Amino acid sequence: MRLLVSCRILPWRRDFSSTARRRVIRDISELPDRVRPSYVQRPTNTLLSLQWPSPPRNILITKKKRTPGITNSLIEYSTHLSTTYPSINVIVEPESADEIHERVSFPVYTYQRPEHGNASPEHLSDKTDLVCTLGGDGTILRASSLFSHATSVPPILSFAMGTIGFLGEWKFKEYKRAFREVYMSGASDAYAKLEDPEVDHRSFPPASPDDPLDKPLSYADIRGKTMGANRTARILLRNRLKVGVFGPDGSRMNSLPESGDTYALNEVIIHRGSSPHLKIIDVFVGGRFLTEAVADGVIISSPTGSTAYSLSSGGSIVHPLVPSLLLTPICPRSLSFRPLVLPAETPITLRLGEKNRGREVEVSIDGKRISEKIGVGMEVRVLGENVKSEDGEWCGGVPSIVRGVNGLEDKEDDHWVGGLNALLKFNYPFGDQDSGH
Amino acid sequence: MRLLVSCRILPWRRDFSSTARRRVIRDISELPDRVRPSYVQRPTNTLLSLQWPSPPRNILITKKKRTPGITNSLIEYSTHLSTTYPSINVIVEPESADEIHERVSFPVYTYQRPEHGNASPEHLSDKTDLVCTLGGDGTILRASSLFSHATSVPPILSFAMGTIGFLGEWKFKEYKRAFREVYMSGASDAYAKLEDPEVDHRSFPPASPDDPLDKPLSYADIRGKTMGANRTARILLRNRLKVGVFGPDGSRMNSLPESGDTYALNEVIIHRGSSPHLKIIDVFVGGRFLTEAVADGVIISSPTGSTAYSLSSGGSIVHPLVPSLLLTPICPRSLSFRPLVLPAETPITLRLGEKNRGREVEVSIDGKRISEKIGVGMEVRVLGENVKSEDGEWCGGVPSIVRGVNGLEDKEDDHWVGGLNALLKFNYPFGDQDSGH
Amino acid sequence: MRLLVSCRILPWRRDFSSTARRRVIRDISELPDRVRPSYVQRPTNTLLSLQWPSPPRNILITKKKRTPGITNSLIEYSTHLSTTYPSINVIVEPESADEIHERVSFPVYTYQRPEHGNASPEHLSDKTDLVCTLGGDGTILRASSLFSHATSVPPILSFAMGTIGFLGEWKFKEYKRAFREVYMSGASDAYAKLEDPEVDHRSFPPASPDDPLDKPLSYADIRGKTMGANRTARILLRNRLKVGVFGPDGSRMNSLPESGDTYALNEVIIHRGSSPHLKIIDVFVGGRFLTEAVADGVIISSPTGSTAYSLSSGGSIVHPLVPSLLLTPICPRSLSFRPLVLPAETPITLRLGEKNRGREVEVSIDGKRISEKIGVGMEVRVLGENVKSEDGEWCGGVPSIVRGVNGLEDKEDDHWVGGLNALLKFNYPFGDQDSGH
Amino acid sequence: MRLLVSCRILPWRRDFSSTARRRVIRDISELPDRVRPSYVQRPTNTLLSLQWPSPPRNILITKKKRTPGITNSLIEYSTHLSTTYPSINVIVEPESADEIHERVSFPVYTYQRPEHGNASPEHLSDKTDLVCTLGGDGTILRASSLFSHATSVPPILSFAMGTIGFLGEWKFKEYKRAFREVYMSGASDAYAKLEDPEVDHRSFPPASPDDPLDKPLSYADIRGKTMGANRTARILLRNRLKVGVFGPDGSRMNSLPESGDTYALNEVIIHRGSSPHLKIIDVFVGGRFLTEAVADGVIISSPTGSTAYSLSSGGSIVHPLVPSLLLTPICPRSLSFRPLVLPAETPITLRLGEKNRGREVEVSIDGKRISEKIGVGMEVRVLGENVKSEDGEWCGGVPSIVRGVNGLEDKEDDHWVGGLNALLKFNYPFGDQDSGH
Repeated sequence: MRLLVSCRILPWRRDFSSTARRRVIRDISELPDRVRPSYVQRPTNTLLSLQWPSPPRNILITKKKRTPGITNSLIEYSTHLSTTYPSINVIVEPESADEIHERVSFPVYTYQRPEHGNASPEHLSDKTDLVCTLGGDGTILRASSLFSHATSVPPILSFAMGTIGFLGEWKFKEYKRAFREVYMSGASDAYAKLEDPEVDHRSFPPASPDDPLDKPLSYADIRGKTMGANRTARILLRNRLKVGVFGPDGSRMNSLPESGDTYALNEVIIHRGSSPHLKIIDVFVGGRFLTEAVADGVIISSPTGSTAYSLSSGGSIVHPLVPSLLLTPICPRSLSFRPLVLPAETPITLRLGEKNRGREVEVSIDGKRISEKIGVGMEVRVLGENVKSEDGEWCGGVPSIVRGVNGLEDKEDDHWVGGLNALLKFNYPFGDQDSGH
Repeated sequence: MRLLVSCRILPWRRDFSSTARRRVIRDISELPDRVRPSYVQRPTNTLLSLQWPSPPRNILITKKKRTPGITNSLIEYSTHLSTTYPSINVIVEPESADEIHERVSFPVYTYQRPEHGNASPEHLSDKTDLVCTLGGDGTILRASSLFSHATSVPPILSFAMGTIGFLGEWKFKEYKRAFREVYMSGASDAYAKLEDPEVDHRSFPPASPDDPLDKPLSYADIRGKTMGANRTARILLRNRLKVGVFGPDGSRMNSLPESGDTYALNEVIIHRGSSPHLKIIDVFVGGRFLTEAVADGVIISSPTGSTAYSLSSGGSIVHPLVPSLLLTPICPRSLSFRPLVLPAETPITLRLGEKNRGREVEVSIDGKRISEKIGVGMEVRVLGENVKSEDGEWCGGVPSIVRGVNGLEDKEDDHWVGGLNALLKFNYPFGDQDSGH
Repeated sequence: MRLLVSCRILPWRRDFSSTARRRVIRDISELPDRVRPSYVQRPTNTLLSLQWPSPPRNILITKKKRTPGITNSLIEYSTHLSTTYPSINVIVEPESADEIHERVSFPVYTYQRPEHGNASPEHLSDKTDLVCTLGGDGTILRASSLFSHATSVPPILSFAMGTIGFLGEWKFKEYKRAFREVYMSGASDAYAKLEDPEVDHRSFPPASPDDPLDKPLSYADIRGKTMGANRTARILLRNRLKVGVFGPDGSRMNSLPESGDTYALNEVIIHRGSSPHLKIIDVFVGGRFLTEAVADGVIISSPTGSTAYSLSSGGSIVHPLVPSLLLTPICPRSLSFRPLVLPAETPITLRLGEKNRGREVEVSIDGKRISEKIGVGMEVRVLGENVKSEDGEWCGGVPSIVRGVNGLEDKEDDHWVGGLNALLKFNYPFGDQDSGH
Repeated sequence: MRLLVSCRILPWRRDFSSTARRRVIRDISELPDRVRPSYVQRPTNTLLSLQWPSPPRNILITKKKRTPGITNSLIEYSTHLSTTYPSINVIVEPESADEIHERVSFPVYTYQRPEHGNASPEHLSDKTDLVCTLGGDGTILRASSLFSHATSVPPILSFAMGTIGFLGEWKFKEYKRAFREVYMSGASDAYAKLEDPEVDHRSFPPASPDDPLDKPLSYADIRGKTMGANRTARILLRNRLKVGVFGPDGSRMNSLPESGDTYALNEVIIHRGSSPHLKIIDVFVGGRFLTEAVADGVIISSPTGSTAYSLSSGGSIVHPLVPSLLLTPICPRSLSFRPLVLPAETPITLRLGEKNRGREVEVSIDGKRISEKIGVGMEVRVLGENVKSEDGEWCGGVPSIVRGVNGLEDKEDDHWVGGLNALLKFNYPFGDQDSGH
């Protein structure tokens, strides 16, 4: 290592020689600030159109853990980005950085894992323009957790490695086309001229060592064929849950006090864990007492989470565009605790009341356990995330890039309908069709 | 009295003598035009506030059928309105008019029953300021059906006779207070001075025979104590379903062609009826094929209908303020046809495909059968009603007056939470609480 | 030809010429009496072994209706039986007799369709040794209905034409081997010498016109290779329901008074049919009032029927060897009407009480409607069939021949487990396996 | 005091003074051997009749834990037994012995708590004639666990303290009548003359110091009015599950090797416990692979357990007299894993396969955790208990004494039907009865 990397945190040094650019791990604090896209509603479509003000530069790539083959895919994918789009900076998770930085010819950026388990990595939400995930729904969920304290999550482009999941629907072999579409989304015809799909990257402006890293890139700098004004990446803005977990003394338990609420993409769960005793959980809706749940646990889920744990526990399937929260009991001691679908803007509180004296529960947000076991008096407070600002602009949520391109929709290619049928074996008929019942 | 009573059907006669005002049945076409209230959103409340520009005058009262005791309640209630609020005109259904007109000392207004079973009564939606129902949920459903072709339904004040239902939550014995609150809702302090609860009706301006019936009444004309500026009736705007039933040739089957779509408060159902054969129904969501339902039938329900037939068929309970449609199968031949909750703005089509050759189905809207049996090629097309106009005003839906008064909410008195607990025996626990599972 | 063909209904004629044996339809009354097998329990197996005292002779073949291709299969199959096993007499349903008698070179026997819809064909249960069905579960159900007033049903060998159903699991292409196994089942080694699979039927004793038809055939008459003493057909004795439907005056409504109870293989259903009103059905278990079902209907099902309508209505899957009855509500107006599994020997009564005044219901047994609509005061009384006599002998039930041969069981070939997985897509997992919930 | 108190374990002392009879804790090994009743089937009743060959003497009384008031009830009840039936010996659990022995005027017997958590107390099943429980279902379950390695469990008479549970249905205030009925059950008229309800215990044969404790008592010794030959206590023989838990090496994990299988009254459960990961459990039925359950866990339940955890997880309600096992998944990742009801005689194996590498599960039997966490390769093997011996005698199971007396059944008093309605709020209707759906 010859170059000094700014050494505030990791012993990375800056390094000017081009051959030495490999093996370098840099800190994301060095990256230019994030490019924030806007999301435009089209009258003919319930999905939104992604529009970059200038091309995205800082791309975070996360991958499924403990799956050896995927490291090669990460190298292949990041190398494609780095060589085809020279202005792009590749960010990976710390473990991935360790794994790949000696095997690639470009610097990889990463961040410090926060000390507190439920905190978010510093700078990440200020530096990341776009997230790409290689894996399944679990990987997307984990990527989303990296932004669980950010009100504005970058768009997520997810590639399924193996079985297609509910959340990520691009096939990995499509990655060149997929990325180009996202990269160019919203670029106007006049300037956007990127050749498809193997662009000659030499025609890009050279990324000289003296170039300021944070000079905004313009679509005008990119030569090649345009995608056309109407060909934009389609965004499904998935509402999240805003979750606060509070101890009996009112202190926050789900994060550092300064981090505030945690956002969950799927659900927050209270569960008896390894305790043999049922939990007695008071449920308040809109500030009013609704019911006392005597159960293994209770799930509050977003519509996106309606096809996850809530579904296993008997909940309905709710389309991600229905602004709502699901309250689903886990093994309730009641014949009549039917799952509820509540307005997203209604605050829900789950409270572990006095009757549970001495009995702890486990609380998890998107599958991540809140570290301490939590006892009597604890409260989980949930509110649906607002994805439309006062002035009608779309914001918040997890912007998921949906397969297909606006203006070229294939009627056959509806991600949600497809997911129901392919993933859930939804409504698979039984018996002999001609026998009547 | 200045107006001729049109005598087209019933033996109604012009009659000036005051004693003879009893026994008179008049046609609603004589009534002044409807007073349309507005609905105002309050930051602190998910319910809307009812605001009359001028006091309501034309009050439709419907009652439960085949229940003798209720006729006396109808007489008691309408007499109270007529004597306490002399400017009020009482409208009843034709059968009720026959039943009560000789027993009351004021004229009753009614309408002609439409010849076509699925048509709406003429003039009714243009003349009715407010609907009051005496009965249960079935009566409210029937009242709502009278406006099933109107885009703007008058507010509904419903009194439960017997068991409290889900939709109507006022007790009949509260009728004086309840009506006064609705009547005064939105009147400003300066003018509204109605004494509570037994107002001296002699203080009202005399209803002289020469007074034009259609002169708008002003709250300034009403003396007495005000309810206060913030004490308004609370409105739950219940979204309806916009339903079209079409034959294989594209002709409309649910109504006269000029009536257009029918609005349903609860649900539209396709059912095998008395056919022993399962129906094979193609389901399209947002124009795309979702699944083929092989089942006794399929329900498309509003959130309001989620506690009716859909609940019996295994659907979730959806709060009436979640803008959504429920798709719930009835006895599907599938282990994996979980009920769905879809965005209200997504069009759903149910189609009776070729595989059903020769097999008819029954279609009902809010429990009312579409007259003809319906065969192969038939389509039911449903869309959630939009209750907010382009310019953000609340409109559409069935404005249900919720018990309690804005500004004086009793924490204990949440109609929906109360309904869950009282009506559904929601989440009634079983077994011995201390035994663990 | 020795016997007069009784010509009561069909244009059957006496006909001596051998070429003319084709085209002949004969009445089953002419057939020798039925050969009744016994069912032997093996310690190692929950299924029973079929043992014929002498080879079966009278074979009833039923086929799926309204499915053209199956007529050819019927001709192929019956011709195989007739030529390979000359002592066998082929019985078919009246319509099939009309369809095929001119196309086969042997006489076909049939019966008169009973005038009363719910009566059983005369003589059929006294003459039929074995039933073969060509079709699906519906065809088996219909075949079983032909014996719905018989306490002893002949064994049923069912061939699936198209999709394998739950009840019938032999593939049609296996018919030669399948039939031979059933035919030889229980024959001792010493005598049974039938060659497999294309036996030279000339070695059979000639069926001379003078031979009495009712002379019992002996396995000693059959030369060829034996199947071995332990290779017997495996029988699953499916318990039926014993059903009586009674009017308010106590008169029987499901059959002629002399026929007594009807046996159902799957279920008996009370349903609202095309009435829009929920039914209010009093349920008595063991003579005691259990509950008042307010529902679209109620199903009482056998374990065999647990994978039919009951499953669609939310019932559990009950293995056919669990001696039990299922009580499953159809769309109940209750959150807490969980399906019940009751002891087979417990009498259940469903009663349409006074609250239903004027509202009729529909009652069906195995999908066959009881002709008259049935009103207030009606009772359906159900008891599980006893399949073991006082002296421990197996009797009753529907003896279903299960694929595979005793002594040669293939571990992979469990009909019920296979059915769950193949037919129901039982427990098809959803989502991304590694994502946790 | 005639007997030496053996002082092997507890600091119990020999004590001859009569006042000193209080404060004495004795070991059950000193008690005479158990009196084993027989259970007789009556043609008119599905319940069995309890018949003692001679009056029961050794009565175990267990009580709910951590509920102060119940200690007084235990003292009241045991004092009643001791004074009214002088030949009776009172056995209590060790903690209860400590609690009460100084407060009662008769010796209390107890046993040593076994060192191995899953072992049964020594001698208990050889000495106990009858078990009485004071508490709820949890207390009965715990009492039953004391005999979890015994093939023959004494009859259990259970008194509900507080809410009536599913298993125990006597009210505590009935204890005098209840016990007398059980005590006299099966005594013939000629001899049994016990006065009811407050018998003069002086008429009992004096318990002389020289009388051997193990001399069988005869009903002839008891004067007083008989209950009548047909008035016997009614027994519901609840089938148990025979459960073996085996490690990957085939070693037994649920008990000491010599104890063999454990009997469960309610259920055995495999659960993920506090692990966030779903378990992948291979299910074998009758030795054949049925399915791979990907779920929070799996329950195998007896019919008695069908109203416990299985019900919470969506299982059907199965009458305790249906010889069956229930397989119910807990939060399965499948839309189509409907609960199964299997024949009691079918062995079921749950196996934690390789896919779970490194992931442990928790196994509990009747709510009692198997101590060690259990990993890959572990198997749970379950078989329904056989409650009828080869020669047709009833044996095994948990003989539960049902409220009411044979010969005097009150039609209204069916324990199971009553339990459904009172405990489960089974089939509580919702909505407005007259509104149709």
